[in-house]
Amino acid sequence: MKLEDIDGGTKLYVIIGDPVSAVRTPGVFNEMFVRQDTNAVLVPLHVAAAHLESVWAGLKAIRNLHGVVITMPHKSRMCGLVDSLGQNGKVVGAINAARRTSDDTWEGDMFDGLGCVNGLQKQGHSVAGKSVFLMGTGGAGAAIASAMAQAGVRRLVITDVNAERLGQVMANVRREYPRLSIAAGQIGQEEFDLAINATPLGMRPEDPLPFDPSGLPESTLVVDVITKPEITPLLSRAQETGHRIQSGRHMHRGQAVACAEFFGFDLGW
Amino acid sequence: MKLEDIDGGTKLYVIIGDPVSAVRTPGVFNEMFVRQDTNAVLVPLHVAAAHLESVWAGLKAIRNLHGVVITMPHKSRMCGLVDSLGQNGKVVGAINAARRTSDDTWEGDMFDGLGCVNGLQKQGHSVAGKSVFLMGTGGAGAAIASAMAQAGVRRLVITDVNAERLGQVMANVRREYPRLSIAAGQIGQEEFDLAINATPLGMRPEDPLPFDPSGLPESTLVVDVITKPEITPLLSRAQETGHRIQSGRHMHRGQAVACAEFFGFDLGW
Repeated sequence: MKLEDIDGGTKLYVIIGDPVSAVRTPGVFNEMFVRQDTNAVLVPLHVAAAHLESVWAGLKAIRNLHGVVITMPHKSRMCGLVDSLGQNGKVVGAINAARRTSDDTWEGDMFDGLGCVNGLQKQGHSVAGKSVFLMGTGGAGAAIASAMAQAGVRRLVITDVNAERLGQVMANVRREYPRLSIAAGQIGQEEFDLAINATPLGMRPEDPLPFDPSGLPESTLVVDVITKPEITPLLSRAQETGHRIQSGRHMHRGQAVACAEFFGFDLGW
Repeated sequence: MKLEDIDGGTKLYVIIGDPVSAVRTPGVFNEMFVRQDTNAVLVPLHVAAAHLESVWAGLKAIRNLHGVVITMPHKSRMCGLVDSLGQNGKVVGAINAARRTSDDTWEGDMFDGLGCVNGLQKQGHSVAGKSVFLMGTGGAGAAIASAMAQAGVRRLVITDVNAERLGQVMANVRREYPRLSIAAGQIGQEEFDLAINATPLGMRPEDPLPFDPSGLPESTLVVDVITKPEITPLLSRAQETGHRIQSGRHMHRGQAVACAEFFGFDLGW
């Protein structure tokens, strides 16, 4: 597949967001289409929040549009605009992908958390049966909580400075996974197999650590969702104290792989 | 420019139509973007007539969408959906391209007829001051009548089996070019510099000739808008009787060149 091969038979995919200037999804997907010689293309659409409904009404009616990747600030509102939701989309109340189904409706789901789980599994860390501490219940945190529950963790302890948001995410997870052991709590109160930062702390050099990994058992895997820098101060400190780590890069790749699979493609690692 | 170079800075162009299976515009434009290393892409959008309004409302709101090529069956209705019209769009009442202007409105125009004029000029046949016979006032014929008037022909004689459509096109041309000598009439009644077929006669092998070129003065240039076959029975017969000819291929290329120029690109011949 090459740019000059785009024709009337090309399957169209888009990413909608505002801004789109830094999106990397087109490159990731189009490299796959080139490599696998698939007659498809993914293009970025710069869509302001004020126009989301009208743009979506138009996009739905484009018959060769097969899938939509959704980024900031549209993830929550798109949840209410698609016809059906996958499990993680239901729990999180936000989606980052939607696909046209065989009966011409649109199904959305959230793959950010699944990306974290897939990234861990790809590195040889199974998640089922494990105890997990999660800090932060914003978009990424809520998605991780949902995906961890779906992946069959034994226990999930969550914290957030925003108590209302924390309570909402816990209630949403409990609603879909009533038998999961889930609690609000801090990291020092019990031992965990995984300790995950899903807050933005670590993006700026002056940020405090989200939590101190030095007191954790050596077996605890320390995970960060931040992609820039790849090795955050949290991960750097965890390495110093002898812990295995996983960076946001793996989650990011896992998210793209899961999203491609949802569209019917094998992105590969 | 390559497919894998598509990013948040890519200028987006689309062609809307139903069907789009055979559209060649994406290839023509994307080959140019590759050749000139322009960060832009043109993708086909399959849009049914019933959804044109909602799709257009959505497309307008996509901020990195810079231009739209319009094909069947949307050329007439899009005329009423853009914010302003160029001269040929006004006369014809149909457009085949629209661009986003610097003040964020959409301007449409019709380039099918201009393509015919440009194609002739590119082959060394000037149009200004000439007498022209035109058969057919459907989409292509109306566009050619308008573009010939704009290009400064001396006299324009038109015919169509559909008298109402003929009258409407003549009235539209007269409204914008009140000083042009224009009449309804047949080809044998006077001598012409150009004789143009803008009917579909010649697409099927069993079609009769739209008109017989054998009685025309040897200086008359015989023009056909049909692209398949490139040498229609009309053109073949005109060659036999010693006339110079021009095929639909030149008009088609001229249309693409004019449309690209409208979007700010130099497609080249």
